[in-house]
Amino acid sequence: MQKKEVLLLLTDHWADWEAANVIAGITMAQTHDVKTISIDKNPKVSIGGLRTEIDYTIEEYKNLDNLAMIILVGGFSWGENIYQEIADFVKKANNLNIPVAAICGATQFLAKHGFLDNAKHTGDEYEYFMEQLKDEKGYKGHANFVVSQLVNDKGFITANETSALEFACEILKVLEVYPEEELAEWYKKYKNGLAN
Amino acid sequence: MQKKEVLLLLTDHWADWEAANVIAGITMAQTHDVKTISIDKNPKVSIGGLRTEIDYTIEEYKNLDNLAMIILVGGFSWGENIYQEIADFVKKANNLNIPVAAICGATQFLAKHGFLDNAKHTGDEYEYFMEQLKDEKGYKGHANFVVSQLVNDKGFITANETSALEFACEILKVLEVYPEEELAEWYKKYKNGLAN
Repeated sequence: MQKKEVLLLLTDHWADWEAANVIAGITMAQTHDVKTISIDKNPKVSIGGLRTEIDYTIEEYKNLDNLAMIILVGGFSWGENIYQEIADFVKKANNLNIPVAAICGATQFLAKHGFLDNAKHTGDEYEYFMEQLKDEKGYKGHANFVVSQLVNDKGFITANETSALEFACEILKVLEVYPEEELAEWYKKYKNGLAN
Repeated sequence: MQKKEVLLLLTDHWADWEAANVIAGITMAQTHDVKTISIDKNPKVSIGGLRTEIDYTIEEYKNLDNLAMIILVGGFSWGENIYQEIADFVKKANNLNIPVAAICGATQFLAKHGFLDNAKHTGDEYEYFMEQLKDEKGYKGHANFVVSQLVNDKGFITANETSALEFACEILKVLEVYPEEELAEWYKKYKNGLAN
């Protein structure tokens, strides 16, 4: 049987550490295939300088039947770009009840496009002041947007840049990759260290 | 002035999370360039499935004048390979007092080639039982090798797979990338989370 895919969506200057734990956790369990996707096929260079190749463009990924989740990795290019084609892809997945996970700048991207308007993400967990950007498109700004450690609501998992492990755990839980006890052990090991 | 380089040495099935924090920390400080190096130019696929391109082969990197450090990332191919060319490269750097950092399986690789024999790494911090491999080469085995959280001795920084943050801090300290106080804050933020 073909494994379902988890798409890791990379943009320029993606943050190396934010999805590192979760993609390794997924592939080690051998339950899903992890593939990279982006707006084009050019390798995307991480903040740390890793030039990483892209498996799919968004344009060619038309059939979502085999898609288990999209993970949007944070990084330095979310703030300055609108990325309408990514927003449309997220919308399509969300409409099909496919979970979308975002961390750091990618969460701000979701907020900018209105995906978090009716979710817990905009509640008390956030210091979240909507601000209209000063352009004709009326996109919402994120000057005072502080992402809480972790929220999972209405199909969107979001986290801040310091939550790589918690983000990983929530995704592994949603994908049902490991039994609950094993996942708790995994988290404890990486949070506290083997020798502690 | 040309920045000094930090080489990230990648092998097949390298561990995504182990050097992610440190390379991002280095490049954000803009004090050094991070480049990937390997035994050949074929992209190296991480455990998490990221196909990452290689800047240099070991063979072509003959001049070490501009080299600040080599970081050996852990992964699944250290155990089954001897990688003599990597050992020779490490030896050359060590002879020039260029620090070498290794995490997880890469630490076992250093031990196998005898680099940790006279260092603290083989002291009380380790449950470390040298074992001759059953081949004519007499390489040391690592069946019962448990790497401690972090050791920095005789030019070698070593850590286990759960020490990505501590490994990052030690490397950033050795490279003098951030003032001590800033580094302590950075560690605290990522260890405990922004919201805590």
